[in-house]
Amino acid sequence: MQDKHIVSSYDRDLDAVQALIVKMGGLVETAIMDCAKALELRDEQMAEQVRANDKAIDALMEQINEETARVIALRSPTARDLRIVLSVMKMSQNLERIGDYAKNIAKRAGVLLQMAPIEGSSGAVRRMARAVELMLKDALDAYIQRDAELAQDVINRDRDVDQMYNALFREFLTFMMEDPRNITACMHLHFIAKNVERMGDHVTALAEQVIYVVTGEMPDEKRPKGDRTPYETHNLPGSEG
Amino acid sequence: MQDKHIVSSYDRDLDAVQALIVKMGGLVETAIMDCAKALELRDEQMAEQVRANDKAIDALMEQINEETARVIALRSPTARDLRIVLSVMKMSQNLERIGDYAKNIAKRAGVLLQMAPIEGSSGAVRRMARAVELMLKDALDAYIQRDAELAQDVINRDRDVDQMYNALFREFLTFMMEDPRNITACMHLHFIAKNVERMGDHVTALAEQVIYVVTGEMPDEKRPKGDRTPYETHNLPGSEG
Repeated sequence: MQDKHIVSSYDRDLDAVQALIVKMGGLVETAIMDCAKALELRDEQMAEQVRANDKAIDALMEQINEETARVIALRSPTARDLRIVLSVMKMSQNLERIGDYAKNIAKRAGVLLQMAPIEGSSGAVRRMARAVELMLKDALDAYIQRDAELAQDVINRDRDVDQMYNALFREFLTFMMEDPRNITACMHLHFIAKNVERMGDHVTALAEQVIYVVTGEMPDEKRPKGDRTPYETHNLPGSEG
Repeated sequence: MQDKHIVSSYDRDLDAVQALIVKMGGLVETAIMDCAKALELRDEQMAEQVRANDKAIDALMEQINEETARVIALRSPTARDLRIVLSVMKMSQNLERIGDYAKNIAKRAGVLLQMAPIEGSSGAVRRMARAVELMLKDALDAYIQRDAELAQDVINRDRDVDQMYNALFREFLTFMMEDPRNITACMHLHFIAKNVERMGDHVTALAEQVIYVVTGEMPDEKRPKGDRTPYETHNLPGSEG
């Protein structure tokens, strides 16, 4: 209890910063689902909406950056409070990147409207996006409830998203090899799937920050992240170049 | 001069944190060039070295995270000093991501060894990587010399990298359409080019932090970033699906 502070306006500052990150998380959740729906339903208006909404997400990150710097400068937080403030700052960067990926997916969804659909692919992307959106929802719940176990569960589930992505990667390769007229559409779909997979990486990083806030330690295992397209594709037809 | 501090051990703390980011930047510069060289020279040992060196980059980010949190907790920096500390924290995240991309490129370089080379492509990737490495070098110099103009020049040069990437994207599409046996190798090369383009985005973000440290303001223009593959590819042969 040594570092327990008693200044109530300080508490209000901390609460306000944390409310902003939860609000930002909610907007990003919506963006994840809407970009995938726009793709599946071939809904240009919804795609346009996702692109427009990204500005609100970016503005929230700016606001969080300013608020956290202000809290540090005015309140000189230490120990657990400092962890909270720095983690909120990092989480806002993860959320901003996820919002960016959603915006890019929405742009590509617009382009894909001009091409013949690739059967089954947009449904598979939507299921992947749904898994990532649920991960984000749980990561935010874990933050609010200071639940390190739930945050760890989120981190573990990123593997499922990676597997979904790997399956799609192979599917797209096969489609392209079968018919070169599929190549352009499949390249775009592949980018979309990759962006969803990257969203999962950023949710994982966010869940790690939750664990850091709750326990004071980063999770042991190096988090899986970045570019993990399957490297061993040389058994696929046509790949011996 | 009001916020000018006089505690010399405080100065040493600030200097130490800034020395760490410059050191980390140097390792990342090397990683950028070496992964591209490993690809061009088909040098498996160099690729392996890039992968091994990424651990040192990650360790430096951890160290910077700990040091910056310690400086904030112990010294309660305000104004310009707080800007420096928070910027170093953000820059270390950008550098860590660039290091990750280099590692992933090195992995793919290893996979591509098992396939027939795609003529001219790895030289083009190396030129792109060289442009990004020079951007990073100048961004770090701009940080050391507190030179906002040079940092802005770095930001402007990211457009050239994007143009190099766009040219490669179209080239890979054409190769794939000409001969389906090129598809797998081109998918990997395309990912590599995309990763180099993303490195450029992170250098741009880092240069923006330099401007923030020097001027106290983020640059006006929303920075170009993220996924900017050309969306209008439907004039290419075979793309009407």
